Amino acid sequence: MEKTMKGLMKQFPETGATFRVDLPIPEPADNEILVKVHFAAICGTDQHIYEWNEWAQERVPLPMVFGHEFSGEIIKVGSGVTAFRAGDRIAAETHIPCNNCYQCRTGNMHNCENMKIIGVHVAGGFSDYAVIPQDCAWKLDDFISYRHAAMLEPMGVAVHGVMSDDINLKSVVILGCGPIGVMAAGVAAAAGAAQVIAVDVFDNKLAMAKKVGANICINTKTQDFIDVILKETNGQGADVIVDYTGAVGLIEVAFKALKKGGRFTFVGLPNKKLSLDLTSAVIYKEARMNGVTGRLMYKTWYQCMDILRQGTFTLDDVIGGIYGLEDYEKAFQDIRSGIPGKMLFDLE
Amino acid sequence: MEKTMKGLMKQFPETGATFRVDLPIPEPADNEILVKVHFAAICGTDQHIYEWNEWAQERVPLPMVFGHEFSGEIIKVGSGVTAFRAGDRIAAETHIPCNNCYQCRTGNMHNCENMKIIGVHVAGGFSDYAVIPQDCAWKLDDFISYRHAAMLEPMGVAVHGVMSDDINLKSVVILGCGPIGVMAAGVAAAAGAAQVIAVDVFDNKLAMAKKVGANICINTKTQDFIDVILKETNGQGADVIVDYTGAVGLIEVAFKALKKGGRFTFVGLPNKKLSLDLTSAVIYKEARMNGVTGRLMYKTWYQCMDILRQGTFTLDDVIGGIYGLEDYEKAFQDIRSGIPGKMLFDLE
Amino acid sequence: MEKTMKGLMKQFPETGATFRVDLPIPEPADNEILVKVHFAAICGTDQHIYEWNEWAQERVPLPMVFGHEFSGEIIKVGSGVTAFRAGDRIAAETHIPCNNCYQCRTGNMHNCENMKIIGVHVAGGFSDYAVIPQDCAWKLDDFISYRHAAMLEPMGVAVHGVMSDDINLKSVVILGCGPIGVMAAGVAAAAGAAQVIAVDVFDNKLAMAKKVGANICINTKTQDFIDVILKETNGQGADVIVDYTGAVGLIEVAFKALKKGGRFTFVGLPNKKLSLDLTSAVIYKEARMNGVTGRLMYKTWYQCMDILRQGTFTLDDVIGGIYGLEDYEKAFQDIRSGIPGKMLFDLE
Amino acid sequence: MEKTMKGLMKQFPETGATFRVDLPIPEPADNEILVKVHFAAICGTDQHIYEWNEWAQERVPLPMVFGHEFSGEIIKVGSGVTAFRAGDRIAAETHIPCNNCYQCRTGNMHNCENMKIIGVHVAGGFSDYAVIPQDCAWKLDDFISYRHAAMLEPMGVAVHGVMSDDINLKSVVILGCGPIGVMAAGVAAAAGAAQVIAVDVFDNKLAMAKKVGANICINTKTQDFIDVILKETNGQGADVIVDYTGAVGLIEVAFKALKKGGRFTFVGLPNKKLSLDLTSAVIYKEARMNGVTGRLMYKTWYQCMDILRQGTFTLDDVIGGIYGLEDYEKAFQDIRSGIPGKMLFDLE
Repeated sequence: MEKTMKGLMKQFPETGATFRVDLPIPEPADNEILVKVHFAAICGTDQHIYEWNEWAQERVPLPMVFGHEFSGEIIKVGSGVTAFRAGDRIAAETHIPCNNCYQCRTGNMHNCENMKIIGVHVAGGFSDYAVIPQDCAWKLDDFISYRHAAMLEPMGVAVHGVMSDDINLKSVVILGCGPIGVMAAGVAAAAGAAQVIAVDVFDNKLAMAKKVGANICINTKTQDFIDVILKETNGQGADVIVDYTGAVGLIEVAFKALKKGGRFTFVGLPNKKLSLDLTSAVIYKEARMNGVTGRLMYKTWYQCMDILRQGTFTLDDVIGGIYGLEDYEKAFQDIRSGIPGKMLFDLE
Repeated sequence: MEKTMKGLMKQFPETGATFRVDLPIPEPADNEILVKVHFAAICGTDQHIYEWNEWAQERVPLPMVFGHEFSGEIIKVGSGVTAFRAGDRIAAETHIPCNNCYQCRTGNMHNCENMKIIGVHVAGGFSDYAVIPQDCAWKLDDFISYRHAAMLEPMGVAVHGVMSDDINLKSVVILGCGPIGVMAAGVAAAAGAAQVIAVDVFDNKLAMAKKVGANICINTKTQDFIDVILKETNGQGADVIVDYTGAVGLIEVAFKALKKGGRFTFVGLPNKKLSLDLTSAVIYKEARMNGVTGRLMYKTWYQCMDILRQGTFTLDDVIGGIYGLEDYEKAFQDIRSGIPGKMLFDLE
Repeated sequence: MEKTMKGLMKQFPETGATFRVDLPIPEPADNEILVKVHFAAICGTDQHIYEWNEWAQERVPLPMVFGHEFSGEIIKVGSGVTAFRAGDRIAAETHIPCNNCYQCRTGNMHNCENMKIIGVHVAGGFSDYAVIPQDCAWKLDDFISYRHAAMLEPMGVAVHGVMSDDINLKSVVILGCGPIGVMAAGVAAAAGAAQVIAVDVFDNKLAMAKKVGANICINTKTQDFIDVILKETNGQGADVIVDYTGAVGLIEVAFKALKKGGRFTFVGLPNKKLSLDLTSAVIYKEARMNGVTGRLMYKTWYQCMDILRQGTFTLDDVIGGIYGLEDYEKAFQDIRSGIPGKMLFDLE
Repeated sequence: MEKTMKGLMKQFPETGATFRVDLPIPEPADNEILVKVHFAAICGTDQHIYEWNEWAQERVPLPMVFGHEFSGEIIKVGSGVTAFRAGDRIAAETHIPCNNCYQCRTGNMHNCENMKIIGVHVAGGFSDYAVIPQDCAWKLDDFISYRHAAMLEPMGVAVHGVMSDDINLKSVVILGCGPIGVMAAGVAAAAGAAQVIAVDVFDNKLAMAKKVGANICINTKTQDFIDVILKETNGQGADVIVDYTGAVGLIEVAFKALKKGGRFTFVGLPNKKLSLDLTSAVIYKEARMNGVTGRLMYKTWYQCMDILRQGTFTLDDVIGGIYGLEDYEKAFQDIRSGIPGKMLFDLE
C-alpha cells in the first residue's frame, strides 16, 4: 500500500479548497475501519465549507479533509471491530453517535446529544482513504454499485423526511428539487403516495423529478403553486408537504396548500426565521409539523435498500455529473450554476 | 315508474334462490333513499345464503331479497335526507350503524355494537330497486363506472385489511386469491409495499393476482410456501401477512413466515378454532395480530378512490363474469367451480 | 310552559350585552332538541363577543343569544331525533358538523369543513331554553352534576390538547393557567404524565393548577422558566409542551425547554405571528408540533368521563364563581380582573 | 481482592442447585465490566433451571452460575469500555445483543436474532462477582437502592407489556399477580390507566396488587371474572388485557372480556397451544394482539426510572422475601409455596 494519498482539503479560512497528493493514509483505532474510497458525493454542507460561510466557520476546524457521502472497500479493521472485515463493501453514515445518551439509548442515535459529523468535526471522504467508526458503516448488498452507494446517505435524508410519518395513498408535495428533493419525489412515488407534486423554480430540476415519478411539476416562477395544488387535490390541499428548500417565504405560503389534519415536514435548513400565523395555518387546521435531520440508524438504510431492490426508482436518474477529484472546481461550479442532480467524485 | 320489479329472493329454507318478477318496489322512509340498481356483485355471504348453511340459518329471516354489493342511481330521497338527491350516482355500504353506541361515536361505525347488515337483516340489492339508509350511500366520482362501483364494497375489505397498519416499503403476503385477496394484492402493490407475495391453491387465481401486481405467486399444492417466503425475504420472513382464506391450517403454518415484530391480519372468517403456539409464534417474535371486518366508514372508501384514481390498479382485472339476474344459477355455479374473480349481475 | 324566557343577548355592535326577559322560547326542528338550560359557563369566545373585538365583529350576526358551554334537561325532541328523548340530561357540544364533508366522513366532525358554532352562528345557551341539533348533545352519566356538565366542553379542549398524542410517563408543561390550562394540568396528572409543570404569570392561577395536580409551578414574572424546566428534566427539556396562552413571545422562548424529539401542541389562539427558528428549534431537535381545536366528537367526551369517574381530578377545583344570569356584568368583570377558574351562570 | 467467591451453581442435570464458595472471580474482556453483586432476584427462569425442566434442559449448558436479575458496583472495566468506570452503580440487563442483525440495527436489540441470555447461555449473577458486556449495564440514579435495582429487570417486563401500546385513560386488566403481574398493576395505575383490574387465584397475591394500585381484584376461584369485568366496564369489556400467566385456558376465556377494538398482550409463556375462535374473539371485534418479550433497550429502563421517580409506585411493596445466598433452598421453596412478591438474595 502507498504511504500517501490524494485528498481535497479545506486548508485556509477562505473560499475554495486545496487539492493535495501528499496526505498521510490514516490508521484505524480499535473501533474503526479503514476504507478505500470508490465514490464520493458533494453535499450542501460541502458547499458551505467550500464557500466558507458562517455555518462552516462556526463548526469546522482547519485543516480538514471534507466530504461525508462516500462508498468504498474496507482495507483494515481495528481490534475491536467485530461486524466488519477487510474486503467488505460499505457506504458511510455521517453521524457519529456517542452510544450513551438518552437519544442513543432509545433508538435515536441519529439525533445523539453529543453528535460528531464526519467531514465536519473529523476527517471525511474526499480522499483515497478514510477512517470511520464501525458504528458508521453500512455493508452493501451485492446489487448496489459503489457509484450508487455514495448516494445512499443523501437518499436517506430523502427517505427519512418523506417517511417520517405514513404516506400510504396520500397526496405528497415536495418543495425543492435539488438532488435530495428529487430523490424524495422518487421515494414518495415508490413508497405508495397516491400523488406526488414537485415544486421548484428550475424547469430542468423539475424534469428530473418528473423522470423519477412526480405526477405534477410546478414551476413557481410561472405558476401559482397554491392554485395548482388545490386544484389537483379537490380543493382540500395536500396530505403531506415536505420541504427541502429551507426557503421560509415559500414555506409560509405553502401552508395554504396543506389539508386539514395534514403534515408539514421540515428538512431544508432555513437561515431566516419562519413567520407563521398559528391560528389559521396550524390550529384551525389541526396541522401537524415535524423537523427531520439525517437518517435513522439504520432503519432508514434498510428502507433505501427496499426501494432500490424494488427497482421502480433508480439512483442513475439523480446523477448530475461525475468528476475526477482534481476537477473539484468544475464540480462545485456546476452545482452553483444550477445543473440538476448529484455531483460525484470518482476515486476508483 | 313500474309498480313491480324483478329480484332474487331467498324464499325457502333450502339450497338455492327464487327469481321473482313481481316484487313490489320499496318506498324510502325519512332517512332513506331509493336506488335504481345498475350492477350488483356476489359476495361470499351471498353464497352462504344461497347454500343456506348454518351461518345463514342463524341470521337471515325469510323471505329476503339478498345481495349487498351494488351500485345505482338515486330515484327518490326521504324527507330527512340532506346529503343526497335524485340523480346522484352511488354505491352501497353494507353496514347500517346505530350512530349512538360507543363505536359509532368514536369513528368506528363499521364496528357498531348494534349493527344491521343490508341483504342479511333488511332487503338487499339483487333487484331492480333497493332502499338503503342515507348513512349507507357513497356518492360516486364521475370517473367510476357503475360496473366498478358494485365492487367498491369488497374492494374496501381488501383495503381495510391491507391498510389496517402501515405497509410502506414492507413485504406483504396475501393468503388466498379469491376476489378480495386479488384486490388486496393489487392494493398492496399500489399502496407502496416493497414486495407482494400471493398464496393460493389455484394457478388461475394466482395468475389474476400476478396481473394486478403480485411480485411472487406461490401455489401451496406444488411449493413449500414457507420456504419460498423466507427465501424471498432474506430469511427474515414477511413484514405483513394478511389472511383472506379463514383456513386455520394455513394460518397456523404461515406464522413461520412472519418476521420478528411483523403483523398478521385476519380477514377471512374461519369456521374452526385456530391452534396457536403463542410462545414461539407470537411472544418470542413480538408479533402483532389484528382482526378486521368490513371497511371504515368512510375513510376506506376515500382510500379506494385514491387507488383507482392513481390508475395502477383497475377493477377490470378482477371481474370474473357478468350475468343477467335470471342467470343466477350459472353465476353461483361458476363461483363454486373455481373460476377466478368477482361475479357481477348486470341490472342496467 | 312559559311563552317567554330570559336570556343574555348581544344586541348592539358595542361592548357589553343586553339582559332580556322577553325572548321567545325556541322550537326544535326535525333533527333538533329543546333544552332547559341548568348551568352555562363563560368561554374566552364569549368575552370576545362581549367586548365586541375584531374576531367577534367578523363572525357574529346581531342580535344573538350567545354562550355555548351549557348543560340541561331535554324538554322536547324533533320528529327525526332517535337517540334522545324528553327528560334526558345532556351537555352541549359547540361544533355543528355538516356530516357530509371529508373531515366529517373520516371521524373528524370537530374539524368539519363547513363548521357552524353554537352561540356564534346560531343562538346559544345563555338563556332559560336553547335548541341544538341532536348531533351536538352528549347524554350525561348519573354521576355528573349539571354544574360540572357545563364545564365538559372546555374540559374537552384541555383533554384534546393534552391527549392529542401519547403522554404516558412524559414530562408535560402547560403554558397558561386560565380555566382550560388548569384543567389541562389536572388531566395530564390524571392521565399518566410523569411530571406536570404549570406556567403562568399569576400566583393564584398557579395555585389552582397546583391543587389539581401540577407538580411544579413557575411564575414567569419571578422565575426563568426555561432554567427551571431544564433543571427539572435533567437538562433534556420536557417531552410535551401544550400552550393555552396564544402568547407568541412565550411560545417562541418555550421551544428552548422542549426535549429532542418532543411535542409542542398549540391550543391558544395567537393574534400575532409566531417567529420561529426552524433550524435550531425544530429541525435539529426533530421536534413535532400540532394544532388542536375543539374536541373529538365524541372520543374526547368519553375520555372526560373516564377522568371524572376515576376521581383524582374534580371540576369543583376549577370553578371560579357562580352568578345569576342578571349578574353577567360582574361575571365578565371578575374574569377581566384575573380571578382564577371558570365562571358559571346558574339557570336552575 | 479475594481470589475466590461464593456462588449458586447449576452443576448436575437434576432438580436443585449447588452452593459453592470456591468459584474463581471472573475477568472482564475488552467490552465487559466486572461487577460486585449487591442484590439478585429470582426469576421464573431460575425456577425452571432449578427444577431442571424441559425448557432448561434444552438451553443451559452445565455447569452454570445462574441468576440474571441483579445490581451491583463496577469493580473493573475492559479496555474497550467507554461508558462506564469502576465505582459506577449498575443494574444488569439480561439480553446480550449481537448489535449487527436487522433487529439490533433498527432499535430492537431486545429482540436480537442472535440473542444470548445472561445466566442461561453465559454465567449469571447468583454470585459475589459477575462479568457482563457493557451493552448490558444500566447506570443507576442515586435515588435507586441496590435492593430495588435488582428488581428493575423484571419491572421492565411489566412496563414493556403494559406500555407496548397506549394505556392513557384505558381500563386495563392484568391476568396473574406473580411479582411481574403485581408490578404491572402498579405500573398501569401510575402510568394513567383509568382503571386497573387484577385477576389471580390467590387472595394474598391479589392483596399485593391492590396495595400497588389495582382498583378491582378478582379471584377466579370464587368469582366469574368475565361477569365482573363486563360489569365494571359498562358491559363493553376492557380496553387492554395483559397476560402474565401463560395459562391458555384463562386467556381463551378472557377474550370475552375484551372490548371491541381492544388490545390483548401476551407476556407469560404458555406451554400449551392456545385454541382461539378468531371469528368471534378477534375478527368481529377488530381486536389487536401482540406478544412481548424482555424490555426495550433502553427505553423501558428510562420508563422504569420515570415511574419510580414519580413515587406513586414503590418496589418495596413487591418484595416477597430477602435471603442469604446459602439459604437458596428456602427461597425457592417459598416461591413454590405461593408466598407473593419477589424473592431477593442479599449479597452485600
